[in-house]
Amino acid sequence: MVAELISVGTEILLGNITNTNARYLSEQCAALGLSCYYQVTVGDNEARLKAAVREALTRSDVIILTGGLGPTNDDLTKEAVAAVLGLPLAEDAHTRERIEDYFNHGIRRAPTENNWKQALVPEGAIVVDNHNGTAPGLILKTQDHKLIILLPGPPGELYPMFEQDIKPYLSKLTPEIIYSRTVKIGGMGESYVADAIKDILASQTNPTIAPYAKTGEVHLRVTARAASKKEAKAMMRPMILELKKRFGSNIFTTREDVTLEGKLVEMLKRYGLTVTTAESCSGGLLSGRLVNVPGASDVLHQCFVTYANSAKHRLLGVKNSTLKKHGAVSRQTAKAMAGGAAKAAGADVALAITGIAGPDGGSEEKPVGLVYIGCYVRGYTEVVECHFSGNRAKVREASVARAIDLGRRCVMKYGRK
Amino acid sequence: MVAELISVGTEILLGNITNTNARYLSEQCAALGLSCYYQVTVGDNEARLKAAVREALTRSDVIILTGGLGPTNDDLTKEAVAAVLGLPLAEDAHTRERIEDYFNHGIRRAPTENNWKQALVPEGAIVVDNHNGTAPGLILKTQDHKLIILLPGPPGELYPMFEQDIKPYLSKLTPEIIYSRTVKIGGMGESYVADAIKDILASQTNPTIAPYAKTGEVHLRVTARAASKKEAKAMMRPMILELKKRFGSNIFTTREDVTLEGKLVEMLKRYGLTVTTAESCSGGLLSGRLVNVPGASDVLHQCFVTYANSAKHRLLGVKNSTLKKHGAVSRQTAKAMAGGAAKAAGADVALAITGIAGPDGGSEEKPVGLVYIGCYVRGYTEVVECHFSGNRAKVREASVARAIDLGRRCVMKYGRK
Repeated sequence: MVAELISVGTEILLGNITNTNARYLSEQCAALGLSCYYQVTVGDNEARLKAAVREALTRSDVIILTGGLGPTNDDLTKEAVAAVLGLPLAEDAHTRERIEDYFNHGIRRAPTENNWKQALVPEGAIVVDNHNGTAPGLILKTQDHKLIILLPGPPGELYPMFEQDIKPYLSKLTPEIIYSRTVKIGGMGESYVADAIKDILASQTNPTIAPYAKTGEVHLRVTARAASKKEAKAMMRPMILELKKRFGSNIFTTREDVTLEGKLVEMLKRYGLTVTTAESCSGGLLSGRLVNVPGASDVLHQCFVTYANSAKHRLLGVKNSTLKKHGAVSRQTAKAMAGGAAKAAGADVALAITGIAGPDGGSEEKPVGLVYIGCYVRGYTEVVECHFSGNRAKVREASVARAIDLGRRCVMKYGRK
Repeated sequence: MVAELISVGTEILLGNITNTNARYLSEQCAALGLSCYYQVTVGDNEARLKAAVREALTRSDVIILTGGLGPTNDDLTKEAVAAVLGLPLAEDAHTRERIEDYFNHGIRRAPTENNWKQALVPEGAIVVDNHNGTAPGLILKTQDHKLIILLPGPPGELYPMFEQDIKPYLSKLTPEIIYSRTVKIGGMGESYVADAIKDILASQTNPTIAPYAKTGEVHLRVTARAASKKEAKAMMRPMILELKKRFGSNIFTTREDVTLEGKLVEMLKRYGLTVTTAESCSGGLLSGRLVNVPGASDVLHQCFVTYANSAKHRLLGVKNSTLKKHGAVSRQTAKAMAGGAAKAAGADVALAITGIAGPDGGSEEKPVGLVYIGCYVRGYTEVVECHFSGNRAKVREASVARAIDLGRRCVMKYGRK
């Protein structure tokens, strides 16, 4: 079955917004086993919108339109699709009730006359309730068994509606289910990871495996097609075991909802440890990322941003002689920052970052991108020297990811009391 | 003139990447006065790619294709376009030389046989040098005076090539030039800003004005069409003066390259002031954002993350009685954190954030999203109470933006020595 996405909105054609809905829906279609051959974007223009729908009907089986379901005169998607299919529009009593309810009990203001337009639906449409707005989703079947699905454009309405109602509906259309799991690896480069599994990548059929790189992490997405979820899980088990064998403790999780920082916080909680940070070039981004884990307050009480040498000395007790002899960006300073931060905060674990993020400040000997990361855990300290590329923001982001991964590895090694 | 964008790449159709190129090019086309009516994405498939080009030729004057110019067999864009136009491919000696040079002096490895494919160009094409990769851009004119422009897909190659060569080429096609300036407003909501200029928004013709909201800021983009840049500037001057009259010091810059945090750092430098931060729920994101300004080290030496009450007391000297009586999330604590941070760091200015970012920790009296932000400047302290919506990350991001804007306002008020 071939799917086609039609995004409706002049704001996309003007470049005012990025079309992230198309990516989301493409990914969902792929996971459902639907082949997406075309994505089309048209503006809020009736003639061009109708032409796009007519053309999609000639080449695709499932057509998903997003946007243009709002209450204003600019919103034409429903009207255009109904016209192409020759279907009259009629008020849907249930939807009218839902809109009334939304205004009376939800946002507590009076609906405008325009809003009732959203209760009109094409004859024979399946109406999908919108739990986050007033425009319902609509599923239409053509006489030659093609599907046209109309969905609201705002991601806050589209995503939950797709997850809750559209995905289950579409998954019934394909005989197989698609099931994925992600194996997340920290602290290894993408090319290194890809090289270590190149034999698997070359010979894969079902399950398949696809690497995705993000800063400081590589995610291996394992996907199986099977008649049931149970069968898919059984099919991918040997591959996941093989990945665990090859990557060992470089894998930090195989759970979808676990982040690298979430994993570190989870380990610290398990071992009953507290953590602090001492940051120079990253300037607080490391502590900021750790604090984004809900419940981080159990393990993190205070952190330091020591950008100037004087602050490294005064707050962390880094010796002036160390700073003078080896420089602020050095293995020795990173070690002293980590140890000093742990002591100053009374924490069991400390992560320290000192480096040259650029654009200025680099030299032949210490170029932009050189970063030392220290990790102290209960009396042991490890320091890694990193060379990152990219602009100031990239170097800082890469430093933070590497520091969290180093923390994870050191806590694993030295954290058990 | 009507423009059409064709993005080529199976990775977009699979949802592996977001099509940010389409947004970039749409924005550029709009600025050049080209009307973009369609954006189409197709995969690395010769038949569908040819069909998309043929269709675009029926309805658009300028067709811009991105992607599919690489060295592998999957890369088909050039071949498909040449086939549609009936043009033979021949090796371009200049491009071959550039590719040789790229490998010998750039990345210093041997080219593969595949790479020479990138030196083949359709007969009659204008070749546009790629200064960041091996695939040149190509401009083709059809017999009925339509333009087909082929550009590399990687943004690091596409953007500079478009800026340097394609934009000047296209701007000659339209009799008018388009010139834009952005008026950036801090600390006001989008609906408030839109309401204050609704008369202008309703009656605009040339220049036009468009509001864009980002966290804690609203940007008003003023755009004029005219025969020359000088004329465009003269046309928009009265509107920019009117905006300055209406928004006064809420406007923090009218320069494209100035960020909110960059403006604060610039003001601190001008007044010879140093700054520190004390963060609770934001956990270092505020200092992290300030440090992202190159040269921030002149004004920022150290900062504190005081997540636990004990840290607020110990590092910042917030009285235990204040914490006990008013709570960690209170006007009084925010004030004491700001003053205490300035004292502890020996800084002239201090920004403090304490709030409930969620998802837990809220109560009827102090709900999730309640944040107090304090700013100390040379003996004066101001505190604002904010109510932010959204998830944990949103609340924290909004707090940081608001704190920087408060810093800007307070430095303006109290910063002159």
